[in-house]
Parts: sequence; C-alpha cells; structure tokens
Amino acid sequence: MITITTKQEMQQLAKQHKEKGRSIGFVPTMGYLHEGHLTLLKEAKKNNDITIMSIFVNPLQFGPGEDFDAYPRNPERDTKLAEEAGVDILFMPSPENMYNSEKSIRMTVLNRTDVLCGVNRPGHFDGVVTVLSKLFHITLPDRAYFGLKDAQQFAVVSGLVEDFDFPLEIVPVETVRESTGLAVSSRNVYLTPEERKQAPALYKSLQKAEELLKDGVQDIAAITGKVKDYIRTHMQADIDYVELLSFPELEQISVPNGKVIVAAAVKFSKARLIDNIIIDV
Amino acid sequence: MITITTKQEMQQLAKQHKEKGRSIGFVPTMGYLHEGHLTLLKEAKKNNDITIMSIFVNPLQFGPGEDFDAYPRNPERDTKLAEEAGVDILFMPSPENMYNSEKSIRMTVLNRTDVLCGVNRPGHFDGVVTVLSKLFHITLPDRAYFGLKDAQQFAVVSGLVEDFDFPLEIVPVETVRESTGLAVSSRNVYLTPEERKQAPALYKSLQKAEELLKDGVQDIAAITGKVKDYIRTHMQADIDYVELLSFPELEQISVPNGKVIVAAAVKFSKARLIDNIIIDV
Repeated sequence: MITITTKQEMQQLAKQHKEKGRSIGFVPTMGYLHEGHLTLLKEAKKNNDITIMSIFVNPLQFGPGEDFDAYPRNPERDTKLAEEAGVDILFMPSPENMYNSEKSIRMTVLNRTDVLCGVNRPGHFDGVVTVLSKLFHITLPDRAYFGLKDAQQFAVVSGLVEDFDFPLEIVPVETVRESTGLAVSSRNVYLTPEERKQAPALYKSLQKAEELLKDGVQDIAAITGKVKDYIRTHMQADIDYVELLSFPELEQISVPNGKVIVAAAVKFSKARLIDNIIIDV
Repeated sequence: MITITTKQEMQQLAKQHKEKGRSIGFVPTMGYLHEGHLTLLKEAKKNNDITIMSIFVNPLQFGPGEDFDAYPRNPERDTKLAEEAGVDILFMPSPENMYNSEKSIRMTVLNRTDVLCGVNRPGHFDGVVTVLSKLFHITLPDRAYFGLKDAQQFAVVSGLVEDFDFPLEIVPVETVRESTGLAVSSRNVYLTPEERKQAPALYKSLQKAEELLKDGVQDIAAITGKVKDYIRTHMQADIDYVELLSFPELEQISVPNGKVIVAAAVKFSKARLIDNIIIDV
C-alpha cells in the first residue's frame, strides 16, 4: 500500500493507472474506520484493478457548532486496517492541500436536502458535493462506493453525478449491522454503556414500519407514528425525525408506492444516531 | 471524422481512447466557426493524439432577452470546416440530451464576474462553468483550448479548474485578428458595412493604452479615458465599458503592475464587439 498526502501526487498517480487501462475503485471516508468501511473496500477490490481509499475530515461539510474538531480520528489504526483490507493507495491530504486556492465557485444542492438530516444541517451537502467533485477529479474512479446508511448522502451524490455527467458509477452498499441490528458508525463511540443497550431499538423501530408496509398499510402518518411510539418506549433519546419518503428523490408522498425509504434520527446524550430501511413496495 | 450527437456515446468513446493511453485535446465551441476556432483546433491537433470539438449553443449561459434563438448557426458548414481542420470527433448534442435530468445542483461563480461583460450578464458565467463541467466529464480532455478574446471566460474557467481540481490543463490561445486588427468573432456577421469599416478602431484604441503603459503612464483613469476618447472619435457606437484590471484575477488596481488587461466593449446598432490586450507591465 502506498500512502499519498497531496492531491497533486494523487492525481498524477491516478492518471498513470488510467493510461494503462486499469480500472479504479474509490472509497471516500472521513476515517475512524469500522466494519461499514471495510465492506465498501471489499466491494471496491472485487470489481476494480486498483482500490483507492481517502481519509479526509472535510471542514466544508461541518456547520458552526458541529463536531469537526471533536470528530474521532485515528490515522495509525486506519492505516493498519486499510493495509489489511488490501487498499492499494491510501490518500490522506491536509485541509490546506485540498483547499489551496481562494474559492471562486460555489456548489449549492437544490433538491433532496430539505428533508431528513438536511433540515438541520444547512450547507452540509454543499460541502459534501464540493469535496466529492474534487476527490473524483483527483482519484479518477470508474466506481465510487457509498454506504446506504447515509441514504440521503447517496441520493445527493447520485444527483451530483447525473447532473454533471461525471464519468463514473456510484455503487450503493448495504448498511453493515452488529448482531443486535445496530448500524455500525464512527459516532457509536459516543454512546454510554446504557445507550448502547438501547441503540438497537432504532433499527427494530424501522422494521416495524417494514412489516406494516408489507401488510399493505398505506397511511403514512400511521406508519411513522408507530415507529415513533416504538422509539419512545424503548429508547431514552430525543427523536429528531421519522420520515417516509420516495427514494432516491426523497420527496413527500401520499401513498407508499415503488421505492420508499423509512428513515429515523435520534439524539442521545452525546451521540446522534441515524438509520433507514429502503423498501420496494 | 466521426460525428456524435449524444453525451452517452461521446463519454463512452472518450473513455476508450483514455484506456488506450491516448491524450485528448478539446475545443468547446458554440459553432459558426471562424479563423479563431480553427487556430484553437490547430493547437489541439499539435499537442494531442485525439482532437474533439463540441458545437453546443448552451441555453444556460444566455440571459432573458439575449440572442439565444438568434445566435448564428450553420452546422453543415461547421462540419465541413471541422473535417478540413482535422477534427477526429465532432460532438453536437441537443439541449435535451445535455440537460436530460432535473437540475439538483447549482454552480455559482463568486469572483471575476462583477467586471467587464459579467456586469450586464448576471448568471452568464454560472451557465458557462456548468456546461464546461459537463463537457469536461463527457470528453475527458488532457487539454482544453480557449481563445483569449473572451479573456474573462478564460479567467473564470481557470478558476473552475483550480477550484475543483479538474484533471486537465486550460490552454490560452491568442486572439486571431483580420489584417485590419479586428478580432474575428461569430457576432461580426451582425455588422453593417459602415460599422465593419469602423470596427477595427476598437483594437486601435486598446493599442493606445498599450503605448501609454509602455511609456510608463500609471494613471489608470487617464489611460482608460484616452481609450474612450479614441473610440468616441472613430466609432459611432455606444461604449459599454473600458477597464484596466489585474489578470487573471480581474481585480481593480490603483497602479498597473505585473499582468494587466485592458478590455473594451462597444455596442453598434446590432452587434456588440469586445476586445482586449493583456500586457505584462
């Protein structure tokens, strides 16, 4: 495995691989790797000649008061895990290297952002599409891998690639779960022992919605109501949202039809957990 | 020469060339080719294995009341000229093919636009960077060629490539002029015979500024004043602007120093002419 720390070197090397006709699989991360990332890497390795993983905690996608400084980091452990996972190139640039020029053009996401996590994170997805545009140009992937745990991110990134005709495929990868059902996440380290016991109830609440949909229930408020009831009964956490939307458009619907997402976010003392289920009704 | 009319086919073909290690030179145009375009093509052919030219009158960069519908078009003649110039791939998509999805992300140019032509064309450069981002992803060039006649466009596109780390080089090409000094332009067809006689005075007025700068004159208002005087004396046209700015930053300066641009725009009965000189003081 090669570790590269500047975008200039990274782009040069990616170009060389492309010129030799090699396909590139790319897994963008903010580090603090877990099972979810390793699953993305496995998919990338399976279908590409070269696997590139980036670790970059992108300041542009954190709002004021968000946890940019506190975001968990462990580059030594990440490097070891990347090597074990068979990553060919680990790209770890600094913010100064990534944002080295005065910004003269702004990207603004118009759709798919005024729901779910986007509501309380104005500008978050603008930062996401900006850094991904740069990373796609720097690593030149044929395929880029995104976990469906952040389904809204997947939806927005699909829009980015479609809108601007990026020459690559966005590959969605199923959420990885602990045996309890809890979706693995870098932010799970923030959970207290008691919260960790309650946390699996989030996924169970979504499975209730899945059951209701499969039973033919069409009343969306009734379905999300049942999810909220389940969360309130089993978790001492504040509900941020429970929503049932079309997928990947993330639009409000009156009747569940075709692909839909049921997504929820709750806030514990420190950790904020999100999860979702995508169902073809 | 192959002519391609859909972005899907174009991207596929560009990928195939890249996989074989071939370099691609790209000349984006709005058609109605003239000597200026042919010079860009000559440069592209000289330094790349494959030359791609696009012809696309981009609706997104025309404002309300601008000449989108009236913009001169002649695809038959253009195709013949492209073939003669040695173009390998002519890419002529329809607006429906280029903008086939609902737009979910907007690009806004923040700098270099509130001067020169940008003042009276709000949103124009947003449309330019959007279509160029798409075209760069569709044609995958190593080098893209831009004439310095539209120096502001060159400056904005340089910012685009720098900001988003596009894996390509923007190559500036000197303005092509008729023997009279008049810069060649697709919009010159709008000139009446009398206006065509007066039009070369625009370049002569800029040469006056160049002389003054070379003589060490530092008073910017005095220099632009002389340019305006010359235009008023020799052309029956309205002056849109005469400006002396830093290049490529396009910022107001108090004393000419380093690279500067002297740029002017005038409006005849129908045709609007622009021209500029870039000088290293």
